[in-house]
Amino acid sequence: MLDFAEQPHKRKNLLTGDHILVSPHRSKRPWQGQVEDLAPDNRPQYDPKCYLCPGNVRADGTQNPDYKDSFVFVNDFSALLEETSVEQFNEENLLIAESERGICKVISFSPRHDLTLPQMDLPAIKAVVDLWQKEFQELAAKEWIKYIQIFENKGSIMGCSNPHPHGQIWAESSLPVEIEKETTQQRAYFKQHGRTLLQDYVAIELKKDERIIIDNEHFVALVPFWAAWPYETMIISKRPVPSVLAFTEVEKEDFARTLRELTIRYDNIFKTSFPYSAGMHQSPVNSGEHPEWHWHMHFYPPLLRSATVKKFMVGYEMLATPQRDITPEQAANTLKQQSTIHYKG
Amino acid sequence: MLDFAEQPHKRKNLLTGDHILVSPHRSKRPWQGQVEDLAPDNRPQYDPKCYLCPGNVRADGTQNPDYKDSFVFVNDFSALLEETSVEQFNEENLLIAESERGICKVISFSPRHDLTLPQMDLPAIKAVVDLWQKEFQELAAKEWIKYIQIFENKGSIMGCSNPHPHGQIWAESSLPVEIEKETTQQRAYFKQHGRTLLQDYVAIELKKDERIIIDNEHFVALVPFWAAWPYETMIISKRPVPSVLAFTEVEKEDFARTLRELTIRYDNIFKTSFPYSAGMHQSPVNSGEHPEWHWHMHFYPPLLRSATVKKFMVGYEMLATPQRDITPEQAANTLKQQSTIHYKG
Ligand SMILES: O=P(O)(O)O[C@H]1O[C@H](CO)[C@@H](O)[C@H](O)[C@H]1O
Ligand SMILES: O=P(O)(O)O[C@H]1O[C@H](CO)[C@@H](O)[C@H](O)[C@H]1O
Repeated sequence: MLDFAEQPHKRKNLLTGDHILVSPHRSKRPWQGQVEDLAPDNRPQYDPKCYLCPGNVRADGTQNPDYKDSFVFVNDFSALLEETSVEQFNEENLLIAESERGICKVISFSPRHDLTLPQMDLPAIKAVVDLWQKEFQELAAKEWIKYIQIFENKGSIMGCSNPHPHGQIWAESSLPVEIEKETTQQRAYFKQHGRTLLQDYVAIELKKDERIIIDNEHFVALVPFWAAWPYETMIISKRPVPSVLAFTEVEKEDFARTLRELTIRYDNIFKTSFPYSAGMHQSPVNSGEHPEWHWHMHFYPPLLRSATVKKFMVGYEMLATPQRDITPEQAANTLKQQSTIHYKG
Repeated sequence: MLDFAEQPHKRKNLLTGDHILVSPHRSKRPWQGQVEDLAPDNRPQYDPKCYLCPGNVRADGTQNPDYKDSFVFVNDFSALLEETSVEQFNEENLLIAESERGICKVISFSPRHDLTLPQMDLPAIKAVVDLWQKEFQELAAKEWIKYIQIFENKGSIMGCSNPHPHGQIWAESSLPVEIEKETTQQRAYFKQHGRTLLQDYVAIELKKDERIIIDNEHFVALVPFWAAWPYETMIISKRPVPSVLAFTEVEKEDFARTLRELTIRYDNIFKTSFPYSAGMHQSPVNSGEHPEWHWHMHFYPPLLRSATVKKFMVGYEMLATPQRDITPEQAANTLKQQSTIHYKG
């Protein structure tokens, strides 16, 4: 028998087809490396210098409206531009490039500068979910857009340059690398079984109940069997829907509830505003039917040992295979033991 | 014409088959995010508390010899273990795992606690190359080992917990994810052309001379066309050899020279000890012929704007596609303009 908690082993990521390495005995190693600074955690409700606060003026001179729940605008420093001509570049099949069109948006989750998702109430989070759905619909209406990436970078350790609660949406003219991989894997499974990969995966996880953190009517939150980051999780819809567009009112409420509970549990682990990059993976748009695609959301949080000691995905991880120390089962246990009331009360 | 310096575009990584996104206009964005602490840069030649300094006692009670150039030992906190039984785990093809055997070693590059590779003289670096070759040979002699990853994490920002100049070697019983990908890509090319992919790639790069940093008799150092990290580079042997094992005396000297010059140029960019993860990619061992495999070494440095502002590979990058701001050509130019004499003299 393979002993997950003692033996070094590899696990297969069903969504990408790649492997990860688990070294459970390694968490005993003492840490003498870099310790992060804790960002100050006493922000005002309104910051006159913040480009996301209501009424403030942004870099390009635009004034933010006096918004009441969430607010969306095109990123003043977009990585992708809508006005880009379609160009190809190929020299001897060795230097291969092509232009990429896109739209980058910023979503402020709340007018309150001092909050984060887990500190917002349910109706406020539900308003963010509504806006995500609306944005997805509007962007998907543009024929040239093939994929819409909705995500959040939270915490300065994740390169987030403004603590005001916000996320981003990047919509673009071709499929990102991770979406290509997940499409291939899900398509192969659907073709063979006539069910989505995540339908069957959720079923076996619910049966085993070793990595489930939240299980409500329409969603589960779990530590995937193949998690690479210490406290990596996924939210998966129980209904196999291709995108956020398909969520009903009741599902949107349940999703908001799941988001709130998961992020509260995260914050409670180290009694800190838990940093992460999180984002939905969903079906490509304007490119035929995708019955294989099953909506889900990934959370990639960097912390390992404490609020200030993170996992470094470097060296062996960059050159060879992502590697983790604590097992996914240990991480799930820790998350399950947390209170569903935020430590700040 | 695709304008690399102005238009957002994707480039294809020939070695992995994946793409990266270039957003050249984006470097104009102001930075308000996390700034790293600079590690103190005045280390003593000998540190009585360092587990790599000659004569010191390590965590497990072993005493380091009084070594004169480089020194290798099995990692006291190895992520892979030699004594691990071979086990498989598979539940309904949804939860898939198997045990992984391996050996993790640490190589001290120098008895001097205060040096780094670019500050060592040529004979000392050549001694490290000799040891890498010897280690590769010894590890490859074990039938069960299929791949040997030689690498270095440099700098606390890269999770390196000891500033004493050192690298690591992880040898294991199956192929890492990145090596699987590079094998697939190189094999397909070799099958079609009867030459290695990197042979032809180096030829076109030398012809164009837009991304070449160093070009000596046996090696080139360049910013790959598909570099993801701001100052990512590769050293490639001109002769298509599968591994470090094939290097002749002259090649090893030239490799040491290339290593020294490249890392000096790195340090000179921001007048700082330039952090990176670097490592050789080479042929799997004990698994048949690999005529497609062409030895090379990757450098993945995180810095973007200064000694303290790095590129964050988060959010969109983790969920979608790696993204860069400055172009590979701009990075190559900066590296080319650096002096080959270390800024510390
Ligand atoms: O082995 P070290 O230096 O203690 O640890 C460092 O390198 C390892 C191999 O790249 C990584 O797995 C660790 O996350 C990193 O902190
Ligand atoms: O867009 P921001 O928040 O300025 O920037 C942050 O998120 C982006 C998208 O994930 C990344 O490309 C940047 O490296 C990161 O610093």
